[in-house]
Amino acid sequence: MTQVHDTRYQRGLAALSAIDGEAGEKVVAQLADIAPDFARYLIEFPFGDIYSRPGLDLRSREIATIAALAALGNAQPQLKVHITAALNVGVTRDEIVEILMQIAVYAGFPAALNALFAAKEVFSSHPPSGAAQ
Amino acid sequence: MTQVHDTRYQRGLAALSAIDGEAGEKVVAQLADIAPDFARYLIEFPFGDIYSRPGLDLRSREIATIAALAALGNAQPQLKVHITAALNVGVTRDEIVEILMQIAVYAGFPAALNALFAAKEVFSSHPPSGAAQ
Amino acid sequence: MTQVHDTRYQRGLAALSAIDGEAGEKVVAQLADIAPDFARYLIEFPFGDIYSRPGLDLRSREIATIAALAALGNAQPQLKVHITAALNVGVTRDEIVEILMQIAVYAGFPAALNALFAAKEVFSSHPPSGAAQ
Amino acid sequence: MTQVHDTRYQRGLAALSAIDGEAGEKVVAQLADIAPDFARYLIEFPFGDIYSRPGLDLRSREIATIAALAALGNAQPQLKVHITAALNVGVTRDEIVEILMQIAVYAGFPAALNALFAAKEVFSSHPPSGAAQ
Amino acid sequence: MTQVHDTRYQRGLAALSAIDGEAGEKVVAQLADIAPDFARYLIEFPFGDIYSRPGLDLRSREIATIAALAALGNAQPQLKVHITAALNVGVTRDEIVEILMQIAVYAGFPAALNALFAAKEVFSSHPPSGAAQ
Amino acid sequence: MTQVHDTRYQRGLAALSAIDGEAGEKVVAQLADIAPDFARYLIEFPFGDIYSRPGLDLRSREIATIAALAALGNAQPQLKVHITAALNVGVTRDEIVEILMQIAVYAGFPAALNALFAAKEVFSSHPPSGAAQ
Repeated sequence: MTQVHDTRYQRGLAALSAIDGEAGEKVVAQLADIAPDFARYLIEFPFGDIYSRPGLDLRSREIATIAALAALGNAQPQLKVHITAALNVGVTRDEIVEILMQIAVYAGFPAALNALFAAKEVFSSHPPSGAAQ
Repeated sequence: MTQVHDTRYQRGLAALSAIDGEAGEKVVAQLADIAPDFARYLIEFPFGDIYSRPGLDLRSREIATIAALAALGNAQPQLKVHITAALNVGVTRDEIVEILMQIAVYAGFPAALNALFAAKEVFSSHPPSGAAQ
Repeated sequence: MTQVHDTRYQRGLAALSAIDGEAGEKVVAQLADIAPDFARYLIEFPFGDIYSRPGLDLRSREIATIAALAALGNAQPQLKVHITAALNVGVTRDEIVEILMQIAVYAGFPAALNALFAAKEVFSSHPPSGAAQ
Repeated sequence: MTQVHDTRYQRGLAALSAIDGEAGEKVVAQLADIAPDFARYLIEFPFGDIYSRPGLDLRSREIATIAALAALGNAQPQLKVHITAALNVGVTRDEIVEILMQIAVYAGFPAALNALFAAKEVFSSHPPSGAAQ
Repeated sequence: MTQVHDTRYQRGLAALSAIDGEAGEKVVAQLADIAPDFARYLIEFPFGDIYSRPGLDLRSREIATIAALAALGNAQPQLKVHITAALNVGVTRDEIVEILMQIAVYAGFPAALNALFAAKEVFSSHPPSGAAQ
Repeated sequence: MTQVHDTRYQRGLAALSAIDGEAGEKVVAQLADIAPDFARYLIEFPFGDIYSRPGLDLRSREIATIAALAALGNAQPQLKVHITAALNVGVTRDEIVEILMQIAVYAGFPAALNALFAAKEVFSSHPPSGAAQ
């Protein structure tokens, strides 16, 4: 039983690490003293189950995620994590800006503006590599 | 002046027609007797300005749109229009289902469920072609 | 004690009747068998306390209410009641359409579209009088 | 591996059945032809993981769920399922009405009204037993 | 008339004090120079009317409130006040964590994460007494 | 073509300047290095198209905007900009407070409280002139 649980957890951890990098590990660490089981669920369900499914490429998954988070407008920390994640899986800065501008159509200009300012913060602390830009 | 205005409007109309097909035209018709100017803005800004920008492919744009609308959860008619639009620009049924399942992570299971049931309705009235499926 | 309670309740009932007309009475009737106390609160707080305050005219109050409900996007029955109420207190059909189009800027085009279609329904069942139009 | 997967799935299925009864089974059936994997996740994560945790009684869990769904206001089908579920785990009709009235404080009167009308529908199709009322 | 008004106000003040303690008083003080009438309404309606009703225990009321606020995700100051309030009326830290983890199912992982981090802040400034923990 | 584009842009810039004053210019400046095209759209569509329409006075437009933003509750920076804008177009401080208190009815007390505290911040940095107060 431990072995199987580990399989799902390990798969999620690998996906989390590949997608979110240090940001994902930081969230897990922040949960350690208040809700360690939730850190486990976060690794197992979103990353071990959903992001590990073969039916959609990670680039498309991150486009969907930053669009959803920008539209909701009440999850700025997670939006920043996934703007970084989008860069990590090959969405360019210009494409991220396109996606966030488009959110103005579906959730209004304030949601788009706040998301663009979140992107501005992320970009300023992530110097573009050749590949990412 | 008419000419330039027409340029932006015509570009939007072409984009709307290519992306949303009949559904877009139907919305414009429904607005005719209550807010015809809004039909014009709908064509000019979202489609003439945003969707016509070269920096992001239409497939990625529709992935972002259905993710945003599914997450918001209060725009089911527009979600259905854009599930159709996503099919029109080459997102497959299986990919749409992947995107909507992923919304459970960011906006909860009810938002994902209601979006999946909207997709079920759209799929049942759009027989899959070879390309779309 | 009854007298004072009646004062607040009666003031709310008068405001509700003046603003929402039959629609307000219908909501109160629908609550009678499930939550009669909530019908009382609905009359006392929103109408007896808030709408009865002298610091803002009813026209401005209804503009604020339909803007808020259109932006929230998940309260279509109440939006329709207050589109009727706005007409009752002197906001014209054209002004209501202007307000709802403006919601596209702050809450997105789907919220504005769904609110405009709600207005279309209300308008079709309320033939314009000279004053209201 | 099958055995362990089954353990989590079976635990979720037992919880779903105990809490939601037929309504849960109906949702799973509706997903069968569009997103069968999502039906499995729905059983495994919310019910197999969360509702099966020993740290909070089911009565408290359903109070939290109907409060959350009523506040969100865009998940009426799920709200109705969980009003039934709340009755199933011993929350009385009067208590459900109290919870939904309280939502007016945190999410506004329209959210509370729409939730109360959802409860009215559920109650009318679930004749009160001695215990539930 | 003054007497009756005082009755409702005094009842609300007593409830507010019992539930929210200093946090409630602080909010009232913050409103004093901008909207003193709103401070009165806040005491009268939520606390004098709703929380003072006999049909639901305060423990259940606070479970509903923190679930609603965590799901909405845009009211972090009020969520913190009510996490404290939940502790005050006997909900344990472990139960609060259970409720907030469950919000992931209905409003997504970001809403649950942000609520858990709010709880972490509250817990760190409220050393557990024997009773509360 | 340039001439016509300029017409729409210039009209929006004039409206933005009249309504939002320095706050509008600041937002445009903040977008310059990340999404300059979005700054252009922000001037053209909300201000050049919507706010420049003759069918509704600016006072009514700002009442609608602050009501919508307060109800949404996830756009505090834009709410502050438009509380300033409302003052600029002749809505008094007392009327703004009335509008925001009313939001408690439609979006709950936390949304109203957070909007009132935003207004408190704006008012404290904008000494009332004779006209504005």
